Amino acid sequence: TAAFAQTNVTVYGIVDMGYINAKANNAGTSKQSFSGIQSGNQMGSRVGFRGTEDLGNGLKALFTLEYGLNADVGAGSWTGTARQSFLGLTGNFGTAVAGRLQNPGYNFASKYDVLGAAVWSPVGQLSDNAGLSISARDGLGRLDNAVAYISPSFSGLTIIAAHAFGEQVKNNPIRGADTDPQAVWALAAEYTLGDLNVGAVYHKLNDIGGTDSAQAEHDRAEYALGASYDFKVVKLSALYQRASDDNVGNVRSDDDSTKLWQVGVGVPVGAKGMVEVAYGRYKNDRDNGRADLDAKAWGVNYEHSLSPRTVAYVGYGRLNNGSNTAFTNLNTGALTSNGKNAAQFGLGMRHSF
Amino acid sequence: TAAFAQTNVTVYGIVDMGYINAKANNAGTSKQSFSGIQSGNQMGSRVGFRGTEDLGNGLKALFTLEYGLNADVGAGSWTGTARQSFLGLTGNFGTAVAGRLQNPGYNFASKYDVLGAAVWSPVGQLSDNAGLSISARDGLGRLDNAVAYISPSFSGLTIIAAHAFGEQVKNNPIRGADTDPQAVWALAAEYTLGDLNVGAVYHKLNDIGGTDSAQAEHDRAEYALGASYDFKVVKLSALYQRASDDNVGNVRSDDDSTKLWQVGVGVPVGAKGMVEVAYGRYKNDRDNGRADLDAKAWGVNYEHSLSPRTVAYVGYGRLNNGSNTAFTNLNTGALTSNGKNAAQFGLGMRHSF
Amino acid sequence: TAAFAQTNVTVYGIVDMGYINAKANNAGTSKQSFSGIQSGNQMGSRVGFRGTEDLGNGLKALFTLEYGLNADVGAGSWTGTARQSFLGLTGNFGTAVAGRLQNPGYNFASKYDVLGAAVWSPVGQLSDNAGLSISARDGLGRLDNAVAYISPSFSGLTIIAAHAFGEQVKNNPIRGADTDPQAVWALAAEYTLGDLNVGAVYHKLNDIGGTDSAQAEHDRAEYALGASYDFKVVKLSALYQRASDDNVGNVRSDDDSTKLWQVGVGVPVGAKGMVEVAYGRYKNDRDNGRADLDAKAWGVNYEHSLSPRTVAYVGYGRLNNGSNTAFTNLNTGALTSNGKNAAQFGLGMRHSF
Repeated sequence: TAAFAQTNVTVYGIVDMGYINAKANNAGTSKQSFSGIQSGNQMGSRVGFRGTEDLGNGLKALFTLEYGLNADVGAGSWTGTARQSFLGLTGNFGTAVAGRLQNPGYNFASKYDVLGAAVWSPVGQLSDNAGLSISARDGLGRLDNAVAYISPSFSGLTIIAAHAFGEQVKNNPIRGADTDPQAVWALAAEYTLGDLNVGAVYHKLNDIGGTDSAQAEHDRAEYALGASYDFKVVKLSALYQRASDDNVGNVRSDDDSTKLWQVGVGVPVGAKGMVEVAYGRYKNDRDNGRADLDAKAWGVNYEHSLSPRTVAYVGYGRLNNGSNTAFTNLNTGALTSNGKNAAQFGLGMRHSF
Repeated sequence: TAAFAQTNVTVYGIVDMGYINAKANNAGTSKQSFSGIQSGNQMGSRVGFRGTEDLGNGLKALFTLEYGLNADVGAGSWTGTARQSFLGLTGNFGTAVAGRLQNPGYNFASKYDVLGAAVWSPVGQLSDNAGLSISARDGLGRLDNAVAYISPSFSGLTIIAAHAFGEQVKNNPIRGADTDPQAVWALAAEYTLGDLNVGAVYHKLNDIGGTDSAQAEHDRAEYALGASYDFKVVKLSALYQRASDDNVGNVRSDDDSTKLWQVGVGVPVGAKGMVEVAYGRYKNDRDNGRADLDAKAWGVNYEHSLSPRTVAYVGYGRLNNGSNTAFTNLNTGALTSNGKNAAQFGLGMRHSF
Repeated sequence: TAAFAQTNVTVYGIVDMGYINAKANNAGTSKQSFSGIQSGNQMGSRVGFRGTEDLGNGLKALFTLEYGLNADVGAGSWTGTARQSFLGLTGNFGTAVAGRLQNPGYNFASKYDVLGAAVWSPVGQLSDNAGLSISARDGLGRLDNAVAYISPSFSGLTIIAAHAFGEQVKNNPIRGADTDPQAVWALAAEYTLGDLNVGAVYHKLNDIGGTDSAQAEHDRAEYALGASYDFKVVKLSALYQRASDDNVGNVRSDDDSTKLWQVGVGVPVGAKGMVEVAYGRYKNDRDNGRADLDAKAWGVNYEHSLSPRTVAYVGYGRLNNGSNTAFTNLNTGALTSNGKNAAQFGLGMRHSF
């Protein structure tokens, strides 16, 4: 009967909504500020459709179609942009999927960030402002037109490999020309032993744009190492990332070298609360006479579980720019300028369904 | 099992579709007309996702994500625009929500309009053409980036308060400048005693645009009073609105004063039918030598319940413009000109799921 | 309870995703190519909402709201474009619906094409490249702002009639002017007797654009005949279409006459497999000194049912252009030029939910 017609698909999602007060210092004594309700402060608001079908012999078909929401506004509220959108098979061999995928670095960054990529997370802010692909925020953190394989767990070890085709028409390709325009290759390993998690991820990006106006199309390699240990009375987490941009602007002698790290600690407060604090630094050394970039950030978050599916949160984050960066608060549009600081405070609720 | 996976979210909606024939007289003996299928004639077509979670102690989390549809076309059919999109808490204290909200005046106008804001409703047409915020149609009738509180019923009395933050970055704000750009404040009271309903609503809008080309950014106050009584053999309903636009175009001596009223009557026809008729007038007096605006309208509607969730309807509405208004039929694009009249006939069906 | 809240609406859809390798020869020795993951290779990926309500006396209300997906990408993944979006009634009298509809020729073309309008189907490629309305691909294959009636089956015979209103404002219409701008009329008959299916469809399109740059607004008549017989060890299917474009570019002596046909055969391979092959030709004869157009295509497809709702497929299709056509592969953007050929290979999976 109709009452059982929904067994093939599950509708799910997250609504994360809260009050944000952000301030960004600007040139001279000027500043920009934002005060209001925002969506997606801790996690992106979303609605998704997913399901599986048993194919026999331990094999299953699976799909996910998940779309981002700007849940605080009318026009453009349902963005039409897929966070993930894939079809695949899962079984004893592991899982293989094709479509729009969250890259290995996306899941990685969330896992080793005690602040879970909230807008006030140091690594969230620094990696997103820098346009890195190992990042729990949007930007390069997802792959269109991609395939991925996730291995089963071998005594706690899981391997992930992904490839994004450069979705573009190749015009009259000849031997010797670039055969993988805008392609991405990714490889990750995760290891779990009791309360310990460690992991590593590697991304190779072809023909990307870049993080500042002086960079035109070039290649990039990124990798990251992460670890966390849950001592119960305290949870420790650390993340280290590097990125190398070669031949920036197609100039052979112009490379970038980026380092980013974060350390974080989470402390349970009673049975339902958790305080998390993190500190991170970003450094970008550049050739060819361009000014080096660096910035640092810290953030704090308190979460209180109201129920299995609902969390109340309060958080604060602060960005300190070096003399050549103008990194700014995520999601508010309040702009800073070189060497100036930005901060934001948030108070809200997150509900999963 | 999968069969019970949908308990966290309910998918719901309305499809309202029908044939519309509209005529709008234009300059001289010219006229524009429209004949075809339209969506949203009585109520806007929509799909939504909503759910609640019990948090204990009488408290619940609740969310609604509801999107408008142009259900008669292909491109742009799913508009991506949220009608409502909020997260909140409800309990003995009342209900508090944040996000994109239907303002108190939106629900108010629907409640005291016997035609329920159909496209042929007098108050629906007049308030929408005039760009009022106490209106059951779109325009200013919804609030982005907002918070609201709805009280429990105190012996039939309910209070609603809402605030929309002006979602914009404030640039270098200094003491003395406007500190609430584009903010909206709203307060409403509803009282129910048996078959009697009375209510009042007040909106304060900062820095809005305006209803004619001579108006630039200015402030507005709107209020409305409404009452209905259901005598069973007949239902009476009346609505009175005022709006004051101060310092129109930032000219201190240039104000607008708007009055709008409607009276309506509904008569049951058998067990499943209802005829509704309403008449309304709009008057806008203006300072600074600009021409006053006025218009009047009437409408009639017959609804027949085919089932608990499906209604067939037929309706007709007519707009008579004053010498300085060119109000026209809603939703068809057929344009009138100053002092000319417009009318539309509709026949359709509305289904809720 | 909430577990039974979903009885009014069913969420359903298709995810079709696979690897595509396409090549299109271009002027001289140049060629364009595409290699990557694509959505909608055999059937368009989609999510829909549908439901019915029993109105008593054998009558039901029914609705469908179905949206297309570009499931392999992020931005624009949920297109917002309705494939179908209608409300209607069904009962002993048949079915009557209004809204955005798949025209009779859309369903017809799928039914008599053994390749089911995959991107490598001859008739799919030829009709879509030619912009015909009797086509299982998008283009003119769907009707905005339309009504349709589908009869009950009279001993195997079903009649379908549809009309699309030209959804535009008519400006000052006078007697003698075109009173149905951009309207479409359609009529179809389907007959089933055991393993035999035969059908005919007729479309009349007013004021359409056209298939080449020399054609401005004009009228068109299209019809098609189709038949299939399932011998169990082999299934045969054939389709013949004609289109007549009158007074092309509003020039009385300039007409087009289009013929398109396809023959196809399907052979079961074991209990779960099926091989399908088809060959088709397109010919367009034109008046007024414009060059005639023609092209031919063939395609092959192997499908393997992994389960009741999941199919794996591999397919190949090739287009051979005549000296004045530059028809090209569907969905990849790789362009050919006059008289050059195009081909694509695909391997993927299709899952229904």
